[in-house]
Amino acid sequence: MTTPHRAPGGFPVVGVIGAGQLARMMVGPAAELGVTLSILAESASASAALVTSSAPVGAHDDLQAVLDFARHCDVVTFDHEHVPAPVLEALAAAGTVLRPAAAALAHAQDKLVMRERLTGLGIRCPRWVRARTRADVVTFAGQVGWPLVAKMPRGGYDGKGVVLAERPEDLADWLAAVGSDGPLRDGILLEERVDFRRELAALVARSPSGQAAAWPVTQTVQTDGVCTQAIGPAPDLDPALAATVTEAALRIAGALDVTGVLAVELFEVDGLDGAPTYVVNELAMRPHNSGHWTMDGAVTGQFEQHLRAVLDLPLGDPRPRQRYAVMANVLGGDDEELYSAYRHVMARDPGAKVHLYGKQVQPGRKVGHVTVCGSDLAELVERAEHAAGYLRGTIRE
Amino acid sequence: MTTPHRAPGGFPVVGVIGAGQLARMMVGPAAELGVTLSILAESASASAALVTSSAPVGAHDDLQAVLDFARHCDVVTFDHEHVPAPVLEALAAAGTVLRPAAAALAHAQDKLVMRERLTGLGIRCPRWVRARTRADVVTFAGQVGWPLVAKMPRGGYDGKGVVLAERPEDLADWLAAVGSDGPLRDGILLEERVDFRRELAALVARSPSGQAAAWPVTQTVQTDGVCTQAIGPAPDLDPALAATVTEAALRIAGALDVTGVLAVELFEVDGLDGAPTYVVNELAMRPHNSGHWTMDGAVTGQFEQHLRAVLDLPLGDPRPRQRYAVMANVLGGDDEELYSAYRHVMARDPGAKVHLYGKQVQPGRKVGHVTVCGSDLAELVERAEHAAGYLRGTIRE
Repeated sequence: MTTPHRAPGGFPVVGVIGAGQLARMMVGPAAELGVTLSILAESASASAALVTSSAPVGAHDDLQAVLDFARHCDVVTFDHEHVPAPVLEALAAAGTVLRPAAAALAHAQDKLVMRERLTGLGIRCPRWVRARTRADVVTFAGQVGWPLVAKMPRGGYDGKGVVLAERPEDLADWLAAVGSDGPLRDGILLEERVDFRRELAALVARSPSGQAAAWPVTQTVQTDGVCTQAIGPAPDLDPALAATVTEAALRIAGALDVTGVLAVELFEVDGLDGAPTYVVNELAMRPHNSGHWTMDGAVTGQFEQHLRAVLDLPLGDPRPRQRYAVMANVLGGDDEELYSAYRHVMARDPGAKVHLYGKQVQPGRKVGHVTVCGSDLAELVERAEHAAGYLRGTIRE
Repeated sequence: MTTPHRAPGGFPVVGVIGAGQLARMMVGPAAELGVTLSILAESASASAALVTSSAPVGAHDDLQAVLDFARHCDVVTFDHEHVPAPVLEALAAAGTVLRPAAAALAHAQDKLVMRERLTGLGIRCPRWVRARTRADVVTFAGQVGWPLVAKMPRGGYDGKGVVLAERPEDLADWLAAVGSDGPLRDGILLEERVDFRRELAALVARSPSGQAAAWPVTQTVQTDGVCTQAIGPAPDLDPALAATVTEAALRIAGALDVTGVLAVELFEVDGLDGAPTYVVNELAMRPHNSGHWTMDGAVTGQFEQHLRAVLDLPLGDPRPRQRYAVMANVLGGDDEELYSAYRHVMARDPGAKVHLYGKQVQPGRKVGHVTVCGSDLAELVERAEHAAGYLRGTIRE
């Protein structure tokens, strides 16, 4: 395995396990910070491997590959949450500095662990239960009504591993797998379906010495379980609710000893008194799609901040640079060739910040995002959606 | 020589000759644009080579190395102006798309060529002459007075190759070298010493299809021939003068067929009527130190814009994001270790954008820069200078 070429002047090497677009978007900030990145890549053509100096190829669940990789790094962080617990334990035993550590990461890896912990902390969650049997399902449905949201505790992403169950039979396959040695070994997470006003995300960063910084709360839109749009700061958000969810995110980060970026995905809901309140949907302990707007829209973007946090460097100013930033994800369309549409988008909108991930286009795959910043929200949404739609091929004017 | 791993989707490979900090600062923007960079590096530990995926080692004046490198690139651009003309000619003959092309680059490589051309275009320059003999020097001094500014036409940078001559004897060594096969083969450039109000830079980008975009005129401060501070937009600049120098820079870019970023360094001087006017000092055909503030302070930074321009992509919006950006260069001090000072600077000023180049610290060497953005100019200057001074070791509070 090639070793990263360490920069002079006492600067550390940050290892990243996984070479997806999140690792890729750390490359520019790392170069500017003077920090050396080394990225354990699933393949030589992975998104981040295409653009960085040190990207040894190895699987995130190959213990020896991960141990060899980590030996050359001062700290190790993650592009995703899929590194198995035994690998994390072996890394820690070998003296690797993991940020976040396995104990924190468990809450992003397992939704049942997360729900138990957040409930214990008094953080508002949807009503939920751990179900192992058909009887558990029926009992819970009797309390919250159909349909139920059923989730695999482990291994889901972008809407995968989630089912909206209308009747017990919809969960028969999953119930049959409970107890096997897989993502359902500890049961299924059942949740009430939340009747939400909109989805929000509270994004914070926390360093090992306990410093924390919060970006403004973001509004997100998910389509078929995939984030398609984010607006930061969330428009017309009740200031009391903004403070409440930011405080909740900071409290979660502290209680779980998160290091790096923590994204708390939330639903904004009607409270009993008619005032808006929240319930927490998911946690992610890494830079998150809901925070891509901060790259262009905040003084310190989430990728720079994540590096600062995992290195225990003082955190940067998370304040927005403009009134609003609107981010739209570019999903793959039918055409593998992107460059022509890209030229068009640049010509139409010189202020649009187009970010592409170097990924092969596949229908529905996230291949990039576009951010526009300014003060006229309707105009910004139109521009971001037009650019993303044109790149996807759903707009051809 | 390793070949760059081309990204899917029809995206091109941009080759950069030279792996200094300018090439390094293209790495982040290239990753975001989805464009593949390949950088011909003077060594494996060169600034840009430390952070990018494809950085074959080879000298910029090694014809075979440069030809081998260029074969894998769709376009080739430059980190510096030092590629010899015969190498540029051989590249063009081999079909390499050079941006800028040799004919344009000649004006940034040779100050006599530049002065002759700008004078022919009616661009305001200091009074100047080509001197080959002591008699030429004495005659010119009789016209403009002592001291004279004498410049080697080729090979100078950061104040090197420039002499302030008080008498003919100060130029005896250079005159003895005139006509030899070196930077003085065509004579010495003599200029009047300009009594300037301040130094300015007009930064523009131009694409092969002729699109051009101008950033606001920048105020620069040079100390001992090295740029130490830049403020964009230049404060209190006469709007008519701003328009005049921007128009001059765009005219130079068009007349010389520049592709990529063109920096026109200028002196602001008193005109005969008392109104401020300008004379051109130098040209650079690449991203330039005077434009580093645009990375954080403009919608489109100069490194992204340079890539867009050399690829003939539509140019991005060059407008500033805030009222002012102040950039201070970090020069090397006595301490090779930078990381401790860096932590301090980050802790003191969470809004400072610290950019480091991964270079070994040597006294006076440019190893990074700091940019702060906002509206209170005096505060911004204090913050930028404090951060840069602390990193250099000249401030220890």
